[in-house]
Amino acid sequence: MTIVNRQILLDSRPQGEATAANFRMVEAELPALADGQVLVRNQFLSVDPYMRGRMNAGESYVPPLSLGEVMGGGTAGEVVASKHADFTQGDAVLGFSGWQEYAIVDARQPGSLQKVDTSSVPLSAYLGAMGMPGVTAWYGLMRIIEPKAGETIVVSAAAGAVGCVVGQLAKAAGCHTVGLAGGPSKCTFVREELGLDACIDYRSYPDVASLGSALAEACPKGIDGNFENVGGVILEAVLSRMNRFGRVAVCGMIAGYNGMPTPLNVPLWILQSRLTVRGFIVGDHMDAWPQAMKEIGALVAQGRLKSHETVSSGLETAPDAFLGLFRGKNIGKQLVSLV
Amino acid sequence: MTIVNRQILLDSRPQGEATAANFRMVEAELPALADGQVLVRNQFLSVDPYMRGRMNAGESYVPPLSLGEVMGGGTAGEVVASKHADFTQGDAVLGFSGWQEYAIVDARQPGSLQKVDTSSVPLSAYLGAMGMPGVTAWYGLMRIIEPKAGETIVVSAAAGAVGCVVGQLAKAAGCHTVGLAGGPSKCTFVREELGLDACIDYRSYPDVASLGSALAEACPKGIDGNFENVGGVILEAVLSRMNRFGRVAVCGMIAGYNGMPTPLNVPLWILQSRLTVRGFIVGDHMDAWPQAMKEIGALVAQGRLKSHETVSSGLETAPDAFLGLFRGKNIGKQLVSLV
Repeated sequence: MTIVNRQILLDSRPQGEATAANFRMVEAELPALADGQVLVRNQFLSVDPYMRGRMNAGESYVPPLSLGEVMGGGTAGEVVASKHADFTQGDAVLGFSGWQEYAIVDARQPGSLQKVDTSSVPLSAYLGAMGMPGVTAWYGLMRIIEPKAGETIVVSAAAGAVGCVVGQLAKAAGCHTVGLAGGPSKCTFVREELGLDACIDYRSYPDVASLGSALAEACPKGIDGNFENVGGVILEAVLSRMNRFGRVAVCGMIAGYNGMPTPLNVPLWILQSRLTVRGFIVGDHMDAWPQAMKEIGALVAQGRLKSHETVSSGLETAPDAFLGLFRGKNIGKQLVSLV
Repeated sequence: MTIVNRQILLDSRPQGEATAANFRMVEAELPALADGQVLVRNQFLSVDPYMRGRMNAGESYVPPLSLGEVMGGGTAGEVVASKHADFTQGDAVLGFSGWQEYAIVDARQPGSLQKVDTSSVPLSAYLGAMGMPGVTAWYGLMRIIEPKAGETIVVSAAAGAVGCVVGQLAKAAGCHTVGLAGGPSKCTFVREELGLDACIDYRSYPDVASLGSALAEACPKGIDGNFENVGGVILEAVLSRMNRFGRVAVCGMIAGYNGMPTPLNVPLWILQSRLTVRGFIVGDHMDAWPQAMKEIGALVAQGRLKSHETVSSGLETAPDAFLGLFRGKNIGKQLVSLV
């Protein structure tokens, strides 16, 4: 039986903003399996902001993709055929095979393929709250911000894949939790679905002074911890309202990923308020994964933390789903479903 | 006997750069001592960059001075008369009585007056390496940067009061240590007197790109720790050359104290290189003082760390000595001698 595999490749490097023209879809016949290999049919693709950095030629905080390479990324799927003893047809697996319908994985490489239990957690959640975005949220909040009950925590991109989990974790930790999100419907989601104490629509406050005032109102005791996903005006306004000895976990600066300048105009806040500002990438902290999964899993089981998703259908929708991240189209984790 | 005390007051608030016209000298007769009070004749006044912040009306990281108030600051002097059992005429003491020749101190206030031993350490050193600048250097380096032998440490304003001690401590910790200073004579001092491995004259590299190249040459293994005293272009260039998981102790941003903008144009470095950037004020960490003094004192006794000073003579020279800090006039700790 011949299986045709559809794939999306990086076709050209973006000049500034990425566009659909930077991608190309191709079809390729799958070769026969060799010993140690596993054939996986991908059911969900993850699209994430960090992928924008990999589209550039230079090193960002992740290595660049080559032109003509399949767009990389996390995937969740099902084993179709296996020549490795640890995997059997029908196994639910996580991998990193990128934007394609099928993948042949060398399962002898440690970490290349991971079996997961879908009896109580849906497969897609392993790309969201129970996966990389969830662990990212947990690490930045619990290991960098270290929230104490009663403190005020702010999270930007609060309706995004990571932000959703940060907000719910901060509430579970007993914090006054305030989100920033773009547009009224996201803000309603953040307050009503995630249960945050307040959510500021940053689009209504385009400059540091007005956003600072809105933050002052939502955070009457100042801000003790900030989980930063956006950068630019948002970061600057939050810094201006932080309490002494505040902690900032810098997880992302999506405002600048397409090349727009995102200066921090008053870095003096860092000194004046004795802030700790720490950048992190979850991949550096794989040792934290078990603890994070344990704590997130417990909250999920108690119904205190939910995985939220926006899902588009079909491989051909992956570029638009990805580009939509930069226009704030998604609520929760953005996935592409292939089945 | 009537003693006339000369004092320098804050006469007006600066608009942008501070000038001599912001200060006014007055003479005042000293009243009689009350119980618990001590009359101190100041021998050395400390002038420090942080004082610029106190000249503004608003809160900086230190509270503002009132107009007509004596310019505050650390002082070292001798007890002239005492109505407190713990102090006797002739005692060498440290205080915080500011820009005046004499001070009447309520010695019952904890911490208002501290006796020091001048048998092996000159009195002036207690305002330098053995005082607040020394502890500042120690705290930022040892508690925030936490240097390991073989790492590369950069310090800006390397010939300044704090920078002098940072550089010597980093060398003593076995680090490749690179200073930044303004002008060839300071750079010679940093290399030859302080013993740093290299010193970059930042005036020769006015933009981030050229200064970054100079840093790359002086720091062939990248930069692991940065002790920041200046901010602006210097901070930006250093961040661009930092290694992953680098640490930045933000002690000062003197480039911005007179109101000039000092934006951080690419805060993305913090994320990309997973940096920790922490602002600190030594006054928050008085508990570190004994450990700092012990370690600095040991290096001083071994001849591995020296206190360096620039001393001007006479109370009337205090404003110029202070203003000179912002033009980089001093090498080592700037003091004003009154005797």
